[in-house]
Amino acid sequence: MAEFMTETEERSSGVPRPGTAEEPRRKTDDPPHAQGTDDPPDAQEAAVQLERARALVDPELRAAVESLPGAMRRIALYHFGWQHADGSPAAGNAGKAIRPALVLAAAAALGGPAARTAAVRAAAAVELVHNFTLVHDDLMDRDTTRRHRPTVWTVFGDADAILGGDALQALALRLLVEDPHPASVPAAARLAACVVELCEGQHVDTDLERRAPEAVTLAEVLAMAEAKTGALLGCACALGALYAGADDEEVAALDGFGRQAGLAFQLIDDVIGIWGDPRHTGKPAGADLAARKKSLPVVAALTSGTPAAAELAALYGRPYREGEAAAGEIARTALAVERAGGRDWAQAEAADRMARAMQELARAVPDPEAAGGLLALAEFVTRRTS
Amino acid sequence: MAEFMTETEERSSGVPRPGTAEEPRRKTDDPPHAQGTDDPPDAQEAAVQLERARALVDPELRAAVESLPGAMRRIALYHFGWQHADGSPAAGNAGKAIRPALVLAAAAALGGPAARTAAVRAAAAVELVHNFTLVHDDLMDRDTTRRHRPTVWTVFGDADAILGGDALQALALRLLVEDPHPASVPAAARLAACVVELCEGQHVDTDLERRAPEAVTLAEVLAMAEAKTGALLGCACALGALYAGADDEEVAALDGFGRQAGLAFQLIDDVIGIWGDPRHTGKPAGADLAARKKSLPVVAALTSGTPAAAELAALYGRPYREGEAAAGEIARTALAVERAGGRDWAQAEAADRMARAMQELARAVPDPEAAGGLLALAEFVTRRTS
Repeated sequence: MAEFMTETEERSSGVPRPGTAEEPRRKTDDPPHAQGTDDPPDAQEAAVQLERARALVDPELRAAVESLPGAMRRIALYHFGWQHADGSPAAGNAGKAIRPALVLAAAAALGGPAARTAAVRAAAAVELVHNFTLVHDDLMDRDTTRRHRPTVWTVFGDADAILGGDALQALALRLLVEDPHPASVPAAARLAACVVELCEGQHVDTDLERRAPEAVTLAEVLAMAEAKTGALLGCACALGALYAGADDEEVAALDGFGRQAGLAFQLIDDVIGIWGDPRHTGKPAGADLAARKKSLPVVAALTSGTPAAAELAALYGRPYREGEAAAGEIARTALAVERAGGRDWAQAEAADRMARAMQELARAVPDPEAAGGLLALAEFVTRRTS
Repeated sequence: MAEFMTETEERSSGVPRPGTAEEPRRKTDDPPHAQGTDDPPDAQEAAVQLERARALVDPELRAAVESLPGAMRRIALYHFGWQHADGSPAAGNAGKAIRPALVLAAAAALGGPAARTAAVRAAAAVELVHNFTLVHDDLMDRDTTRRHRPTVWTVFGDADAILGGDALQALALRLLVEDPHPASVPAAARLAACVVELCEGQHVDTDLERRAPEAVTLAEVLAMAEAKTGALLGCACALGALYAGADDEEVAALDGFGRQAGLAFQLIDDVIGIWGDPRHTGKPAGADLAARKKSLPVVAALTSGTPAAAELAALYGRPYREGEAAAGEIARTALAVERAGGRDWAQAEAADRMARAMQELARAVPDPEAAGGLLALAEFVTRRTS
C-alpha cells in the first residue's frame, strides 16, 4: 500500500504533462499538486476541490482522532502533522485529501450539494483507512520519511506503529457505523472489504518483488496495482455514490471509475520512476531500475518477447552495483525497457485506463457538468492536465 | 494484548483451585480447561458451553476466513490451525472459544435460545478480533509459539503478520455490519471501540514495563489490565446482550460483568505467575519475577509502604542474573512480595472483582437459572471452580 501515490514539491508555476519527466517526485502518499497562474481550468478546479475537502473533512477527522485514548491519540496526532513528536502543537500536514475529495465529489455528482455535506464522515473514514495503511506500510518498508517528517515507527517504535495503525483502522469503521446516515452500513461493509483488498495487494507486491523477473506476468502486476492503488480510490468514489443514494449499478460504475483512474495514475507514476528527471524527482536517475523494481513498464518489457526483453532480463538478473559503470548500466536498462516497448505500452495503457474511467463515469453520471468535479480530480491524480 | 490468557495443558483429572499454585501454565490465549470425572457442576457446564460455542461459531468463522483472498486466507487458515504452514489441511486448534461462548451465553441469558442462535455472527466477529490481536501481539512480543505451533510471524514473516492481522480486523467488522440483525450496527461500533481500548492497553503495558518500578502506581496497572484483559471479555458479553435486545443498562451491566471477571482472572493468573509450581506451569519458578514483570501483586507490594516493599524495590532495581544465586534471589523476591502483602492483596482483590462481577450479572439477569451459563464461564476463566 505504500508508495502508491507520490507528491511533488510545491511548484510556483508550470503544468505537469503526462508521461514527461518534468515532475518533481518524492515518496509520500499523494499525487503532485499542480499550482500556478497558468494552470488549466481542470487543475484549478481540482485544487479548489481538494482545498474544500480538506476544510470540510479536517474537523471531523480531528474530532475522531481526539476521541482516541492517550497514546493512540498522540501517535495519530503526530502522524497527521497536528503535533510534533514532543506533543507540542503543529500546523498539520495531512496530505492532499485526494480520497476525501473523491468521496465528496462522487456524492455531489450523484446527489448534489446536500449529498456532499452528508458524506463528510464517510470521507473522513476513507482518509483514516488510507492513513492506517501508510503507518503500517512505512513500518513494513522501513521508510523513514513521510510528508517531509520522520515516520511513526522511527519516532514511536515498531510496536506503537502497529498499535497506532490498528487503532486508526478501528476508528475509521467506528466513525462510519456511528453515522446515522442510511448509507453508512453498506459503506462500512465496502470499506472493510477494501481494507482486505489493500492488504492482499501489499502482500502480492512484496511477493512479486521477491520473485525472479521471468516468473512475473503482466496480468499479475496489473492485478496487484489495482488492489494496491485502485481499490481505495474506487472505494472512495463508491462510498460517495452510496451516500448520494445511488443504485447498485451506479455505485459499481463509480468504483470502476476510481479503480481505472488509479491504474492510470500508477502507470504514469511508473514511467516517471524510470525516465523522470532526477533534478525534479528528488531521487537518483533510474532509482526504480537500480532497485530492480518490477514496475509496470518493466514487466511489460520483460514479457514482450523481443530481443530487448532478453537483454533486460539479463540486466535485471544481476544485482545493481554502485560505481563508475552504474550510470551507464542504468541508461542501458532504461533503453532496453524502451526498446522492448515498455514505455509506449505504459503510456498507451494509461490512456486506455483513463478512457475506461471516463466510460464508467459517463455510465453513472451522464451530465458532463455534474461529472466535472470527478473528472478534474481524475485528471489531477494522473497529471493529465493538458 | 498478548499473554492475557494462559492455557493449561490438558489434564485428565483434578480441579484447579483459586490462588493455588497447582495449575499447569503455558503462554497461549486461553484460560485453563478443567476436565475430568470429578469436575464440579460449574466446570462441566462451562465445558459444555465452550464445546457448543465452538461447534456453532466455527462454521461461520471458517466461512469468513475462506472468503479472504489468497495470501490473507492462507495466513488466517494457518493461524486458526486449519492449515499447516505448507497449506495442507490440519485438524484445527482455534483455542477454547471463551469469548464466543460469552457472547452466546449473554444472548441466551437475556433472550433465550433464539437470541443465542441469532448471535452466532457476533460471536465469530469477537473471535476474529481476538485473533487479530494475537497475531499482532505475537509479532510485537516476538513470541514464537502459540497454541503449540509456531506463531504467524515466524512462519510468514513480519510484513505478513501485520497484513494478516489487519485483514482479520477488517473481516471482523465486515462480518458484523453485513449481519442483517438490528443489533449488528451498535455491536460493530462497540467492537471497534473495544479494539481501540485493546490497543491502548497493550501500549500502556509495554510502557509500564519500561518504567522504573517506583514510577508505577497500582491504579495504572489495574487500568491497564482492565483495558488489555477485561475490555474484550466485557465487549463479548455486551454484544450478546445487544443481540438479545437488551436495554442500555443491561448492556452496560453485562459489559461490567465481563470486565470484572476478566480482572479477577488476571489477578489470579499473576499470582500463579509468581507462586505457580514449575512442574505444572511449564515455566521456570518465578519466571515473571526474573523478567522483573510489573504484575499486579508485585506493584501492590511495591506500593505498600512496608519494609518489604523497599527490599523488593531494591531487588527489582537490578537486572536478574542467571547463576547459582538465581534461585535464592527469586525465592527472596517472592517472599518480599508476599511479606509486603502482594499475594494477599491480589487474592482479596480477585475475590472482590468476582463479587462485583456477580453484582453486575444479577443486575442484568436476576434469575439465577438464566444467569447460570455466564456464571459457569466466569468461574471457569477465573478457575474458581470450588
